Amino acid sequence: MTPPLSRFPVPALDHLPTDLARRFSEVADKSGFVPNIFRALAWRPVEWRAFFAYHDALMDKESPALSKADRELIVVVTSAANDCLYCVVAHGAIVRIRARDPFLADQVAVDWRKAPLSTAQRVMLEASLLLAMDPAAVGPEHLARLAEAGFSQDDVWDIGSISALFALSNRLAHWAAVPPNDEFYLLGRVRRE
Amino acid sequence: MTPPLSRFPVPALDHLPTDLARRFSEVADKSGFVPNIFRALAWRPVEWRAFFAYHDALMDKESPALSKADRELIVVVTSAANDCLYCVVAHGAIVRIRARDPFLADQVAVDWRKAPLSTAQRVMLEASLLLAMDPAAVGPEHLARLAEAGFSQDDVWDIGSISALFALSNRLAHWAAVPPNDEFYLLGRVRRE
Amino acid sequence: MTPPLSRFPVPALDHLPTDLARRFSEVADKSGFVPNIFRALAWRPVEWRAFFAYHDALMDKESPALSKADRELIVVVTSAANDCLYCVVAHGAIVRIRARDPFLADQVAVDWRKAPLSTAQRVMLEASLLLAMDPAAVGPEHLARLAEAGFSQDDVWDIGSISALFALSNRLAHWAAVPPNDEFYLLGRVRRE
Amino acid sequence: MTPPLSRFPVPALDHLPTDLARRFSEVADKSGFVPNIFRALAWRPVEWRAFFAYHDALMDKESPALSKADRELIVVVTSAANDCLYCVVAHGAIVRIRARDPFLADQVAVDWRKAPLSTAQRVMLEASLLLAMDPAAVGPEHLARLAEAGFSQDDVWDIGSISALFALSNRLAHWAAVPPNDEFYLLGRVRRE
Amino acid sequence: MTPPLSRFPVPALDHLPTDLARRFSEVADKSGFVPNIFRALAWRPVEWRAFFAYHDALMDKESPALSKADRELIVVVTSAANDCLYCVVAHGAIVRIRARDPFLADQVAVDWRKAPLSTAQRVMLEASLLLAMDPAAVGPEHLARLAEAGFSQDDVWDIGSISALFALSNRLAHWAAVPPNDEFYLLGRVRRE
Amino acid sequence: MTPPLSRFPVPALDHLPTDLARRFSEVADKSGFVPNIFRALAWRPVEWRAFFAYHDALMDKESPALSKADRELIVVVTSAANDCLYCVVAHGAIVRIRARDPFLADQVAVDWRKAPLSTAQRVMLEASLLLAMDPAAVGPEHLARLAEAGFSQDDVWDIGSISALFALSNRLAHWAAVPPNDEFYLLGRVRRE
Repeated sequence: MTPPLSRFPVPALDHLPTDLARRFSEVADKSGFVPNIFRALAWRPVEWRAFFAYHDALMDKESPALSKADRELIVVVTSAANDCLYCVVAHGAIVRIRARDPFLADQVAVDWRKAPLSTAQRVMLEASLLLAMDPAAVGPEHLARLAEAGFSQDDVWDIGSISALFALSNRLAHWAAVPPNDEFYLLGRVRRE
Repeated sequence: MTPPLSRFPVPALDHLPTDLARRFSEVADKSGFVPNIFRALAWRPVEWRAFFAYHDALMDKESPALSKADRELIVVVTSAANDCLYCVVAHGAIVRIRARDPFLADQVAVDWRKAPLSTAQRVMLEASLLLAMDPAAVGPEHLARLAEAGFSQDDVWDIGSISALFALSNRLAHWAAVPPNDEFYLLGRVRRE
Repeated sequence: MTPPLSRFPVPALDHLPTDLARRFSEVADKSGFVPNIFRALAWRPVEWRAFFAYHDALMDKESPALSKADRELIVVVTSAANDCLYCVVAHGAIVRIRARDPFLADQVAVDWRKAPLSTAQRVMLEASLLLAMDPAAVGPEHLARLAEAGFSQDDVWDIGSISALFALSNRLAHWAAVPPNDEFYLLGRVRRE
Repeated sequence: MTPPLSRFPVPALDHLPTDLARRFSEVADKSGFVPNIFRALAWRPVEWRAFFAYHDALMDKESPALSKADRELIVVVTSAANDCLYCVVAHGAIVRIRARDPFLADQVAVDWRKAPLSTAQRVMLEASLLLAMDPAAVGPEHLARLAEAGFSQDDVWDIGSISALFALSNRLAHWAAVPPNDEFYLLGRVRRE
Repeated sequence: MTPPLSRFPVPALDHLPTDLARRFSEVADKSGFVPNIFRALAWRPVEWRAFFAYHDALMDKESPALSKADRELIVVVTSAANDCLYCVVAHGAIVRIRARDPFLADQVAVDWRKAPLSTAQRVMLEASLLLAMDPAAVGPEHLARLAEAGFSQDDVWDIGSISALFALSNRLAHWAAVPPNDEFYLLGRVRRE
Repeated sequence: MTPPLSRFPVPALDHLPTDLARRFSEVADKSGFVPNIFRALAWRPVEWRAFFAYHDALMDKESPALSKADRELIVVVTSAANDCLYCVVAHGAIVRIRARDPFLADQVAVDWRKAPLSTAQRVMLEASLLLAMDPAAVGPEHLARLAEAGFSQDDVWDIGSISALFALSNRLAHWAAVPPNDEFYLLGRVRRE
């Protein structure tokens, strides 16, 4: 008994605009399946394009202080604070793969404060979580602390923007009740030799 | 002593990519000034384009049950819950203009429950505020209530998506500390004959 | 469609006790209208007299460190935290007039932390807001911080008492659903030359 | 080691304005001691007079549905929610005396929901507590429920006003750190035959 | 009209397992009555034995820095935060007796921050209350602060364990609605000469 | 770099009291490893025995309406609300095994409201979570709802007691910072044929 992909219409895979169809094929070729969020947003192609353009600009990117795995950690921690199953499970899988660590995603999702993280990662998660949950409380001191922890101005912008983008994403997933694909639950749990 | 437009770099008006420059001109022609948020996001043109594409898809739109003024009310109420000065003041001005009411924006920003609203507007604000502040608490009953209040499936998606988009927007404005333009404070306060 | 002035009886202007009638005339002469809260409390003249005696003792007063505008700022910030439309709009107007600033009232009502305030004003607002929202958390360190910021013992008492008095006032306005007069919304928004 | 009566100046008993001195004598004659709050507010006679005028108008009063003991119950429950020792202990003593019940004050102070109360008392406490802790959430339905429970319009006003007045009173007691007199702790605990 | 001892079955005193019956006799001999919680848990003898074994291991114990009265203070403060009437009243009585102070139990139950406590007691209550109300927020710094305040490693374990055990106990008392015995309310209120 | 098993002393496996040693062997024989919580509590054998006696009385038990898997669901949901990594990961593994479902534990840990559960399970989780997070709010109506959902009086007691016992357990694990064994993360994730 598979749950529906969304509370809203989900276009058939052969009825997608060309650019969406191409991206669906690429992701399916790479990971073996199309993530449900791709399908659930597709009935609104303009919003779909905006969302993934924003997403790719922030997530498909690395800097010396802010790796792709770090970016995914922000997603998992802020999404866990919002009880967003889709984002915790899907991005938890990406954390396991990118950080090559089968435990870290569950650790930060449940209690990031006791997780094995670097000081810079702690400062990063504290600031992004504050922005996620109590945005008016963010002051210049929080951005200063990120700079002191070694993040560049671009990194600081990205840290806040990733938290902000998943504030949007968590709410879309809750509103439409999009479940994670079954495949995500197990991805990266077994260390590959 | 004007506050800075952002905690991050703000490109000079004559150093913008062509498409951004065009949009800046259009909005300045129409309203007499360039809203600060346009300028504060411009150092990241890809994100700028994604944000405004998303924004326009949801806000420049009307349906029989969900007017442009209604959409702005969602923005004001959820942004007030997040203490976001930029969005409350800028979108409050748009509410005054679109609803042709000099009081409504302040009323919903401070205490929407006592504001003079239709039943459908109340259901709309209650659901969008719940998604903004406690997204995991949104259940199928809240979407059903919107349908009962006369909103179409497209409207229901829009109501949730506007709340979600401004969850992002409020957080960007807090992160970068973007102030509203002075002009917004007074716009629409004097009824035009 | 004007909303009612109260959920409780409102005495006609020609049926007021003499001392109330005199005060109504004075305020109408000075500002051009009688604030709704004067009318909504008038069916209970003993309570009316106590409330305004208390109010005047704390608000019609200036000291070197605590101006009348500062006192009104405390009212706006604590009333905004309580979502009290009457007090935010009416005392926001007084802030605009007393501080000769068309923006400050809206700025502190929505997000006082980013508003252009002096250090003493910040300490004052932080302490009065703590007393308003979490009174048991006030400790001797908060009063000491006020003294360090330059407030006299009398000022410190006043800061706490104003917060306390509007804890009462906000609750009366919510209980009786007293709306602000339309005039308050626009007062002081246009800088006079 | 008796704690100080206040963080602010406390006038000597022989340096009081005549009207305050008279009231101090009356209460001392009646109960054997002067409640500390009388002394702690006395350095501000105008505020003292306003506070006690307001207090007496609401508390020295009985109606068929709202007894003096009921009024004190509102004080104890809302003051307990604000962790106000002075009001819980002093008005708890009055509850014990007025209700002729040695247990009720402690029961409602800790967990009013399980206390042995009438349905009308429950509705009364629920509404007054909502006004105390989340005033913007009070809607017309809460006042309607009070009317259905048998309270007159005057009673409904009093219920809200008592909650509002002690919102003020709790905050004054916290701000000045006024302790209850030792005598209050034991008053009314032993059933008199 | 005595309230029932529990929402669940309460075994008659002559139908108890031998070991429970013996303990009931001992406590009745010592204090003159059987505390209601003994009776309310007795329909589940295995759980009864586990609960009291745990309780005695933590509470019937003294160390140089952590007296029996201190242990009871932790119970009163954390139980008050959980609005647990049984534990506040029963353990409040024990505080009065063990600390030979007729006021301290009420003072810490309502507002421990203003109560006359030693620095070590304050650190102890702050940490145990944090564990009770926001357990994930406890970090190594809180345990370090206890050590700095003079508590041994065993004491630190006990402080946390007492808070944890009464997290269980408060919830059992709420679930079964166990009232305190009338006797507890007055115990220790009159200083014995 | 394995984290320590506890912030407190952990007895060597060959220095345990006989009864603890026997239980350690049994669990190691059955599951291939000794759960860390067994080791972390072992320096206090009396408390260890009380904890596991209580645990076994509630968890090693089945009734027609309340299976062992259901009991573990209560643990996972309430422990997730307390951000307790040990309990979420260890009991999540047991849920996967007992419910023969590789997804359910993660689903209820992150967002039980959208998880595929029976009506009785929802009522059970709602009541146990309320007791865990806001115990004073539990009223007779919550217990009545459990009875209506088909739970016996014994089941209702167990549901509350399991929530209460893990209120204790979560706090011990947070206080001592006990991490889950690595083995738990993967247990039951791959459906066995």
